[in-house]
Amino acid sequence: MPILRLPWWGKRMLPSGQMIYEFAERLFPICRSITGEGVRATLRLIQERLPSLRIREVPSGTQCFDWTVPREWNIRDAWVIDPDGRKVIDFKASNLHVVGYSVPVDTEIDLEELDQHLHSLPEQPNAIPYVTSYYTEGWGFCLTHQQRQSLKPGRYRVKIDADLQNGSLTYGECILAGETDREVLLSTYICHPSLANNEVSGPCVTTFLAEWLMERKPRRYTYRVIFIPETIGSITYLARHYEAMKQRVIAGFNITCVGDDRAYSYLPSRAESTLADRVALHVLQHLHPGFQRYRYLDRGGDERQYCSPGIDLPVVSVMRSKYGTYPEYHTSLDNLNLISPEGLYGSYRVLIRCLACIESDFVPLMTVPCEPQLSKHGLYPDLSTTEGAAALTAIMDLFAYADGQRSLLEIAEKIGQPMWDLVPLAGRLRAAGLLKDKAAEPAILGHPVSANS
Amino acid sequence: MPILRLPWWGKRMLPSGQMIYEFAERLFPICRSITGEGVRATLRLIQERLPSLRIREVPSGTQCFDWTVPREWNIRDAWVIDPDGRKVIDFKASNLHVVGYSVPVDTEIDLEELDQHLHSLPEQPNAIPYVTSYYTEGWGFCLTHQQRQSLKPGRYRVKIDADLQNGSLTYGECILAGETDREVLLSTYICHPSLANNEVSGPCVTTFLAEWLMERKPRRYTYRVIFIPETIGSITYLARHYEAMKQRVIAGFNITCVGDDRAYSYLPSRAESTLADRVALHVLQHLHPGFQRYRYLDRGGDERQYCSPGIDLPVVSVMRSKYGTYPEYHTSLDNLNLISPEGLYGSYRVLIRCLACIESDFVPLMTVPCEPQLSKHGLYPDLSTTEGAAALTAIMDLFAYADGQRSLLEIAEKIGQPMWDLVPLAGRLRAAGLLKDKAAEPAILGHPVSANS
Amino acid sequence: MPILRLPWWGKRMLPSGQMIYEFAERLFPICRSITGEGVRATLRLIQERLPSLRIREVPSGTQCFDWTVPREWNIRDAWVIDPDGRKVIDFKASNLHVVGYSVPVDTEIDLEELDQHLHSLPEQPNAIPYVTSYYTEGWGFCLTHQQRQSLKPGRYRVKIDADLQNGSLTYGECILAGETDREVLLSTYICHPSLANNEVSGPCVTTFLAEWLMERKPRRYTYRVIFIPETIGSITYLARHYEAMKQRVIAGFNITCVGDDRAYSYLPSRAESTLADRVALHVLQHLHPGFQRYRYLDRGGDERQYCSPGIDLPVVSVMRSKYGTYPEYHTSLDNLNLISPEGLYGSYRVLIRCLACIESDFVPLMTVPCEPQLSKHGLYPDLSTTEGAAALTAIMDLFAYADGQRSLLEIAEKIGQPMWDLVPLAGRLRAAGLLKDKAAEPAILGHPVSANS
Repeated sequence: MPILRLPWWGKRMLPSGQMIYEFAERLFPICRSITGEGVRATLRLIQERLPSLRIREVPSGTQCFDWTVPREWNIRDAWVIDPDGRKVIDFKASNLHVVGYSVPVDTEIDLEELDQHLHSLPEQPNAIPYVTSYYTEGWGFCLTHQQRQSLKPGRYRVKIDADLQNGSLTYGECILAGETDREVLLSTYICHPSLANNEVSGPCVTTFLAEWLMERKPRRYTYRVIFIPETIGSITYLARHYEAMKQRVIAGFNITCVGDDRAYSYLPSRAESTLADRVALHVLQHLHPGFQRYRYLDRGGDERQYCSPGIDLPVVSVMRSKYGTYPEYHTSLDNLNLISPEGLYGSYRVLIRCLACIESDFVPLMTVPCEPQLSKHGLYPDLSTTEGAAALTAIMDLFAYADGQRSLLEIAEKIGQPMWDLVPLAGRLRAAGLLKDKAAEPAILGHPVSANS
Repeated sequence: MPILRLPWWGKRMLPSGQMIYEFAERLFPICRSITGEGVRATLRLIQERLPSLRIREVPSGTQCFDWTVPREWNIRDAWVIDPDGRKVIDFKASNLHVVGYSVPVDTEIDLEELDQHLHSLPEQPNAIPYVTSYYTEGWGFCLTHQQRQSLKPGRYRVKIDADLQNGSLTYGECILAGETDREVLLSTYICHPSLANNEVSGPCVTTFLAEWLMERKPRRYTYRVIFIPETIGSITYLARHYEAMKQRVIAGFNITCVGDDRAYSYLPSRAESTLADRVALHVLQHLHPGFQRYRYLDRGGDERQYCSPGIDLPVVSVMRSKYGTYPEYHTSLDNLNLISPEGLYGSYRVLIRCLACIESDFVPLMTVPCEPQLSKHGLYPDLSTTEGAAALTAIMDLFAYADGQRSLLEIAEKIGQPMWDLVPLAGRLRAAGLLKDKAAEPAILGHPVSANS
Repeated sequence: MPILRLPWWGKRMLPSGQMIYEFAERLFPICRSITGEGVRATLRLIQERLPSLRIREVPSGTQCFDWTVPREWNIRDAWVIDPDGRKVIDFKASNLHVVGYSVPVDTEIDLEELDQHLHSLPEQPNAIPYVTSYYTEGWGFCLTHQQRQSLKPGRYRVKIDADLQNGSLTYGECILAGETDREVLLSTYICHPSLANNEVSGPCVTTFLAEWLMERKPRRYTYRVIFIPETIGSITYLARHYEAMKQRVIAGFNITCVGDDRAYSYLPSRAESTLADRVALHVLQHLHPGFQRYRYLDRGGDERQYCSPGIDLPVVSVMRSKYGTYPEYHTSLDNLNLISPEGLYGSYRVLIRCLACIESDFVPLMTVPCEPQLSKHGLYPDLSTTEGAAALTAIMDLFAYADGQRSLLEIAEKIGQPMWDLVPLAGRLRAAGLLKDKAAEPAILGHPVSANS
């Protein structure tokens, strides 16, 4: 049988989950927000692995659809000193202690007044909550409920050494050109401070996906990989790029909550049955059939913007434990202990499988009527093995549905086989001239797809 | 938040079920048939509440499709006197005693011969059955099986003082003009003698619906409210009006069996998924989720004509206990004790909800890409209340599907919320300029719908 | 009521299953293969019953799509003589003893060498397997495992007196012209040696179906009845006729495994919802609701060619026990004891019902709006009988869906009635002028269908 080069399906160069985890350890300590130096520091670390990453700045005050880019927030230090002179809250111990976007404070107040600026979780007394106040000016501290209950009455010194002033919103963008300008979008967040599953898992897995993509050649599709702050970041990005993206993006993945190892989950695009949806479902159903399937109504990330009316991009989320569904969510318990090399690697592997399916998909069309005489073409498998018998069934089923009406992915779904079992068979049949790519026929589609074999 | 005027959703002016029941008490005693003075008397009582009701007469012999308007039947009195001189059957005691459309009789016969003209129900020995013979000439009496068994042998005097001669078929029609000539049809029967659930409940509820409609302003749609004899009446009415109705009617309700309080039920239109069907299902699923769902094959009323091939109107039935399914059906037990103020009011409320949904429906389209910044528009709900959090979810879900492809009703179904919870939210978003009516854009639809806010 | 002539639904002339079984007894002993004298002998016996059968010859070497017509194989005798001089394997005892398409052999070899040419079934020790080697040159003998184990070491004389040389592939074809050139295809195999369910049942039932068709007049459709070797035969036939067949064939049946009485089964066409599929399902659901429903992925016969991309004929299989699913399949146990008059007759009856449904189908359209007044037309059934009440319901349901959008078969499915109960009612309504055939209106369809009543 002809030897096939299948650059999207080899096992070479897959990093271990340990490497992704170690990268997460580097990103975790940085204090990020929707703007500021923490974002830039994060992007510079990513740039070490992805030299083609471009760091973009959008000035405060820029109008983006219904929104305005806010002032830039930077924090240097913050603390609360109790009546006994002890530093009872210290930003240096955890960057979750300060409410995101707190205005500068330097004052002395009674416990009663301080208490109105404190946030804790009575039902999770040893967790520091994650709180922000991006669009309502104010300040506050977050602490464990245990800490809060131990505060004694009296006079407290409070300091937040922060700036909130005109600057810019920062994001990272990496375009990996392919043979066509049709695009696959990978989008992840770089706006969360020290939070692990939600959220350093996202930029870490995305960085390693982009590294892997850089090594795949040829790439049929162009890959648009972006590292942005949530909500305001995607709105800002879309305001600049949505016209091109609407024309080009054929599938997109919002990469978030991909670090723990308790679950796999899927959240559809608003349109529910795009290529991205079908690929994600196909991969999860075959690799992790117990995965959790959410509805679009359960959404909560940037798919809200990507899939919004008027934007309508085909963006799905393939996650581990979904935001809002696990007890450590948005607290200091979502830390490096919650995520694992296995958790990160599992997400990475599923997403790689999704991208490989997209790259390998085509519209098979038989070149002869009726079944071909396989033995004549040296394609009749050795039926004395189980693999051979399965291959014969798969080849025959592939011929049966290679009618130019269904893509290879759709055929895989129809015949109940994982697409990765069909790709090498389809490659051999194409090499033998028995199958061709319907879409490669210029007379039929105005927008030819170059063959990927 | 902006204050909204929602004329279709207020609670003002809803009559109590007691008022509808009292009107049923006035209609009940009249001896109606498919033609005759009983029909006219009934329509005059309705006209007291609906001054714009027009009473129409169609002469006997008029050809209507495959049918001919029959001769007019009027009855003054009828009795049977037994060999002992006792009046054992008396029309004055119950107008069900005489078979509808009986020819005049004045004779003396033996019990054996009389018996061939008697109708009773052995399995319901204390019920007088309801029998008619519109298209086969004859005469007969109906009585309880107990009465029938007590008749002694001998000579009986029999008298039916009735006319069957050329006259006309009578119906009532009330057109309530709206801003457009697109119509909603309400149709009910005035051909049954003293029968309560099936059938004075129908004209009573319909009369109060029409009164309620008269007070709703502005009305987007025109309302065609008709009070007709069953089968021959709808065929006659359609023969005169079906061309206009086919062009104009967007939804219709056949209002029958709406008086008891044992069940809610729904019978679809033949097309099964018209606006009327979706609205009826939506209202019943949210208000009375235990409702009984019938198939079109279970039909038995004028939807047979309205939905017939060549007519194809979108007419459904929302009922309480459906005709043919309850033991008192078509007997003297279907009397004022069977229906109740609660039963009538429940039907009235469901139908009002259906009409309000139709009037309030529109095709929401977001005016900005991505999610709006709600706080900027003063639309961010107070999340400290359960209602506020639910409102935020509903607003976000509304934006998510306000793509100009779905009506508000369809969005309500998609997100699993009753439409009446979305109407005020949609109104506020329209007032804030964040949502518009796609159908109001002349460039897109040739048939613009005026906004209802 | 008008009297109807329903030539497709009468019970006259149905042969007993015994007649079909006796014909199977005549075909069974012949040694058939994909070419050769056995095929010709079989076709001549069929020709006795179907004088219009044409026997066609296609020369060896003819190119048919991806295949080449092979050399013709004829066998006269074959045996194996053991060291004691006893004829331990004898072709005359069972034509399954020789591997199909074995090359001539005349030699003396040791048991060890002979054993490499033997085929038996350890798990069915008393069955001779059926083995062929059409496209790989070789020779072999098949025997029971018991026989094989009793062979003693030593020198064996082996003889296969066969020819494998240029000749032709033979098939039979019978075209029964109808009023239109639109066709129904019946296809069956004549390439199996002495095997009963799979396969003399197929040509036997098909022969009797063709006889029955010859007596149906008028026939709306043309019937193409073919007796071919499997795979190479259908590919050869299609290579010659597929362009005409693609234009003309509206439904087709691959008739195989129709002889035993243990099951009814259905295997869809690749398109899954063609007229042939709907008819087959309709008939089986009403006659044999316990039938086994297979997927197209379970296919294994000539539907692989008929339904292949580029051919796309609407061909289904209605079977008894499907090939590959019963223990006797492809062994000497699939003999005349396995099939029965009842088994053959059951298949025959189901297929006749399918053909009668196809012939009787039309697109009913009411000629009047609203329901007709049945009594006026003498069509009001006698409601004092159960049949009458059922007929009234069926007539009303038929009117309800006679909208020119659905065929009679689709209406039967919609209202849950067998089509054969509706055909006489529809005939009466057509005779009364209340129903017409929508497809017969030249203005609507360019391809008028002549009425079948």
